[in-house]
Amino acid sequence: MALPTRVKMVEVGPRDGLQNEQAVSLADKIKLVDALSLTGLSYIEAASFVSPKWVPQMADSADVMAGIKRQQGVTYAALTPNVKGFELAMAASTDEVAIFGAASEAFSQKNINCSISESLERFAPVIAAAKAQNVRVRGYVSCVLGCPYQGEVPLSDVVRVAKTLFEMGCYEVSLGDTIGVGTPIQAQHMLSAVAEEVAIERLALHFHNTYGQALANIASCLPLGVATIDSAVAGLGGCPYAKGASGNVASEDVLYMLNGMGIETGVDLNALALAGQDICKALGTQPRSLVSQALAAHCSA
Amino acid sequence: MALPTRVKMVEVGPRDGLQNEQAVSLADKIKLVDALSLTGLSYIEAASFVSPKWVPQMADSADVMAGIKRQQGVTYAALTPNVKGFELAMAASTDEVAIFGAASEAFSQKNINCSISESLERFAPVIAAAKAQNVRVRGYVSCVLGCPYQGEVPLSDVVRVAKTLFEMGCYEVSLGDTIGVGTPIQAQHMLSAVAEEVAIERLALHFHNTYGQALANIASCLPLGVATIDSAVAGLGGCPYAKGASGNVASEDVLYMLNGMGIETGVDLNALALAGQDICKALGTQPRSLVSQALAAHCSA
Repeated sequence: MALPTRVKMVEVGPRDGLQNEQAVSLADKIKLVDALSLTGLSYIEAASFVSPKWVPQMADSADVMAGIKRQQGVTYAALTPNVKGFELAMAASTDEVAIFGAASEAFSQKNINCSISESLERFAPVIAAAKAQNVRVRGYVSCVLGCPYQGEVPLSDVVRVAKTLFEMGCYEVSLGDTIGVGTPIQAQHMLSAVAEEVAIERLALHFHNTYGQALANIASCLPLGVATIDSAVAGLGGCPYAKGASGNVASEDVLYMLNGMGIETGVDLNALALAGQDICKALGTQPRSLVSQALAAHCSA
Repeated sequence: MALPTRVKMVEVGPRDGLQNEQAVSLADKIKLVDALSLTGLSYIEAASFVSPKWVPQMADSADVMAGIKRQQGVTYAALTPNVKGFELAMAASTDEVAIFGAASEAFSQKNINCSISESLERFAPVIAAAKAQNVRVRGYVSCVLGCPYQGEVPLSDVVRVAKTLFEMGCYEVSLGDTIGVGTPIQAQHMLSAVAEEVAIERLALHFHNTYGQALANIASCLPLGVATIDSAVAGLGGCPYAKGASGNVASEDVLYMLNGMGIETGVDLNALALAGQDICKALGTQPRSLVSQALAAHCSA
């Protein structure tokens, strides 16, 4: 039980962020990933090889992967829900892939029309294909602190799905508060419960900021030793279940906090804020990062 | 070292909030205080008896205090920097008053043109007058986690000013991160240091959200036992040193977090959010509370 000395920031803005924003041009996506690549980030989820029928914003993922200027030391990852997506990702020279399960039965049924168990079975061939090509697979668990359809999600379900993804071969499992409803004590309990089955070094936090709680939840979980945090530059992304609601926790706000806590990340705050301000110009929005807003306002710090 | 079971929420929106917003009408101010009075809040800082030359937004404070419909169990407080302000506050039937010192020498010099020690001496007659009339005095310490002029503020200065205010007769000392630059570990260290000299039951947190850290800082300090939290409905207030920057931590977001942590407050979240949405309509702005925005968007929770 001690704060990590270093945290790995997993940047999900180009994928989890932009898939829940209005569409931006291919050029703007490439510009975003390229800018993020120069901030010191070591991991960028840049694309999603899902059906464009489901997520039209990600239809040009192969072009994004082809257009970016890759930097040494940066892992460019993509979401791949099935073998077809995995093959497209490989054809686009994706470094790593990610799969996602829900901790909520209701969410799984509504979202992908099958039970949690069935959804996990469907990932087996993706993981097998990845293993055969020596490609690492990251696993997401959604709805770990609440579900838009069933409300409360039993901790035992969160633990079971996280453990299954890990045992199936995911090197890391990212715990998602998809609708951003959790609060600090709940987040700590959830993480502690999962950490009893999957080593904390293999766990990541993926918290949305719908109710403004994400940073408080991360701060409360860091003393448990978790050292991988997902976030989206400029707080990109929305709540897909409600228009106008906030998205992922902003990378700038996470980084500012980690800097203040003396936790190393290797990421440059000003460069990150500029990358976020640029994509927000393309979106015609303001960064949903208070750090970014304060820096832009030259607020005293 | 344990979470409090109950937190007292001190609502500063009508004073610390509105004094840093554009002016709103007397009727809107009265409406705000009246709405807040019906949420279950027990303490509302409703006015400020300072020179209207300094803070024109508070010039109608006596009219606010005369116009509100007082509810039993609610303390209506006002800021009173000097004896003249105290007398005006008493004439307006103010229940409690507050005074403020800075932990930063540079801030004190720039802001009120005297040293910290001189500023504290000036409060002695206010406290004496209050004692004579059996009126409680609350003390604020500003810049406890950083100063817009001198940058870092020595912890020893924070402790000294807090201790002095308490010894001078303040029943409670509110520790203000005026420019919202602090992060969780700093906040914990600061609170711990002050709590060695002033009992934690006599301390309050007053954190601004300029860099989005306020809720994380509060969450990190609650396990130290602090049980009084200042906040402003709708996150009213700005950073007086930078246009466009965020203000006080939003009461709705604090309350949502406390509710989720099982900490009692007696305050109704929906009533609070409505009060904030109404004053924001008068201001022509959106609530700077993500909870309020999510509730308005009917986001799943």
